[in-house]
Amino acid sequence: MAEHPLLGGIEAGGTKFVCAVGTGPNDLRALARFPTTTPDETLSRVIDFFQKQPEPIAALGIGSFGPVDPDPASPTYGYITTTPKPGWAHTDVAGTLRRALNVPVAFDTDVNAAALGEHRWGAGRGLHTFVYLTIGTGIGGGAIVNGRRHHGHQHPEMGHLLIPRLPDDNRPGICPFHGDCLEGLASGPAIAARWGRPAPELPPSHPAWDQVAHYLALGLTNLILTLSPQRLILGGGVMHQTHLFPRLRQKVAACLNGYVTLPDLETFIVPPALGDRAGVLGALALAEEVLA
Amino acid sequence: MAEHPLLGGIEAGGTKFVCAVGTGPNDLRALARFPTTTPDETLSRVIDFFQKQPEPIAALGIGSFGPVDPDPASPTYGYITTTPKPGWAHTDVAGTLRRALNVPVAFDTDVNAAALGEHRWGAGRGLHTFVYLTIGTGIGGGAIVNGRRHHGHQHPEMGHLLIPRLPDDNRPGICPFHGDCLEGLASGPAIAARWGRPAPELPPSHPAWDQVAHYLALGLTNLILTLSPQRLILGGGVMHQTHLFPRLRQKVAACLNGYVTLPDLETFIVPPALGDRAGVLGALALAEEVLA
Ligand SMILES: Nc1ncnc2c1ncn2[C@@H]1O[C@H](COP(=O)(O)OP(=O)(O)O)[C@@H](O)[C@H]1O
Ligand SMILES: Nc1ncnc2c1ncn2[C@@H]1O[C@H](COP(=O)(O)OP(=O)(O)O)[C@@H](O)[C@H]1O
Ligand SMILES: [Zn+2]
Ligand SMILES: [Zn+2]
Repeated sequence: MAEHPLLGGIEAGGTKFVCAVGTGPNDLRALARFPTTTPDETLSRVIDFFQKQPEPIAALGIGSFGPVDPDPASPTYGYITTTPKPGWAHTDVAGTLRRALNVPVAFDTDVNAAALGEHRWGAGRGLHTFVYLTIGTGIGGGAIVNGRRHHGHQHPEMGHLLIPRLPDDNRPGICPFHGDCLEGLASGPAIAARWGRPAPELPPSHPAWDQVAHYLALGLTNLILTLSPQRLILGGGVMHQTHLFPRLRQKVAACLNGYVTLPDLETFIVPPALGDRAGVLGALALAEEVLA
Repeated sequence: MAEHPLLGGIEAGGTKFVCAVGTGPNDLRALARFPTTTPDETLSRVIDFFQKQPEPIAALGIGSFGPVDPDPASPTYGYITTTPKPGWAHTDVAGTLRRALNVPVAFDTDVNAAALGEHRWGAGRGLHTFVYLTIGTGIGGGAIVNGRRHHGHQHPEMGHLLIPRLPDDNRPGICPFHGDCLEGLASGPAIAARWGRPAPELPPSHPAWDQVAHYLALGLTNLILTLSPQRLILGGGVMHQTHLFPRLRQKVAACLNGYVTLPDLETFIVPPALGDRAGVLGALALAEEVLA
């Protein structure tokens, strides 16, 4: 085994699959995106991409949309399980790729992979316990707890935390499962539904953002009260609104109201150091782990 | 070292200290309760209790009310830190007892100790990830995550999760820090304040209990979404109302609305197998760990 074996990583998303070959953020040798169509078509393109590389990969990591089975001891390890996404329920993603590419495969949720990427190369370095939350089309969270990717019984679904709606907000949240959960109130589509315009078009001075910051702060507060993380790393399209970071720091402190001791707020609530590549780089880090 | 060394355990509560000597639940050789007065007086009584035992203990475990410093690497390990309880802020509980009794001392939150007790001898046996929640004068939670007592940056404060108040409930929660947090809405004193009678006096048919079950279910739902525990063990005075268990199982399932896969509900939400002794027995289990 070479000292730095070549790794493959896949961020398997509901809209697109991002594939990478390399050994880390400073040595990315290939990067490709494929739209998420049918499992057959999508996985064939992925296999083709890795097979056409000039040098073979030694291992593959996959961070996937879910729900998934991330338990290596389970017979359905590496499956996307009960997803409502048409055609994808009960798809053996990891097994299909392992058989086609004939390399060891590591598999986890997209957000746990992103958390691992940040742990290995980004804003989570040196920490034992932190959360990575993405706020985009959906809201999802992964966690490193005591230095390990956290699963529990299945895996967390932090995006669906139940939070109180603001008294002056008469529009119920849009989550089809829960209505007023975090995703139902503060995801990109929830913001668009609430204000009648796509979230990226709302200027920083728009009242939408104070409301979004309020809901996200409630969610973060509940994560803090449950996990006591050393850091909260917030990524995803909605967090491109960087003015949200100072608002969140202020509002989280206000929600907790001095009840728990927090790290310095400036370093406590931060963007991913790997930016939008946290997920796919995390998939490389997963591949690295399987060789360790 | 004897194969089953004699252990000492203390459940250090805000109203009383419970002290025990033994090797486990079936071998409790002494048990005593002292009211929590000043630190000096209370700790003197505790020291006296252990010194008067016919056989010396080999190690001492302490599960304490908080907030505490549970980090063995910290200079204030074993301290009660910023508690509002008069006289107790910045009290070196573990150090005082270690010096007086001259034995190794292990220290954690009262709820982490109870979780450990249930892990060692109770309803958490064989599980890697579960939560112990006490619903009494306050609400507090401890967790075993990946087989270890969970701390994070400081320690969780699960009792203060922010949850939505019911639309027909016009009385704000009573938590002085957060108003409508779980403790502010569903602890024993919150129930008494809301209905004008002590919680133990409200019959099972009283509408209070459906409301309490609703709030507790929201809190449990948020714990599930964040930690994905294999089990939720619920203790404390309020849970002596055993009719709450079936209500909670039903309401938690309704809150999650099929979004996550749960273990069988009957074994998922359960009382502590060690009953009200989970805390003090957990302290014995802490002592056992320090000798391992
Ligand atoms: N600059 C932006 N400001 C606000 N919202 C944004 C911005 N960029 C993307 N979004 C929103 O984020 C969502 C897409 O999230 P993203 O993390 O990019 O992808 P996904 O969650 O689908 O993987 C969309 O709802 C989009 O409107
Ligand atoms: N059988 C009961 N039914 C309802 N509430 C109870 C019952 N027993 C105790 N409580 C309430 O629980 C609280 C005491 O909780 P407990 O766990 O016994 O002690 P603490 O939390 O102080 O350690 C009080 O508010 C009390 O009214
Ligand atoms: Zn939801
Ligand atoms: Zn509170």
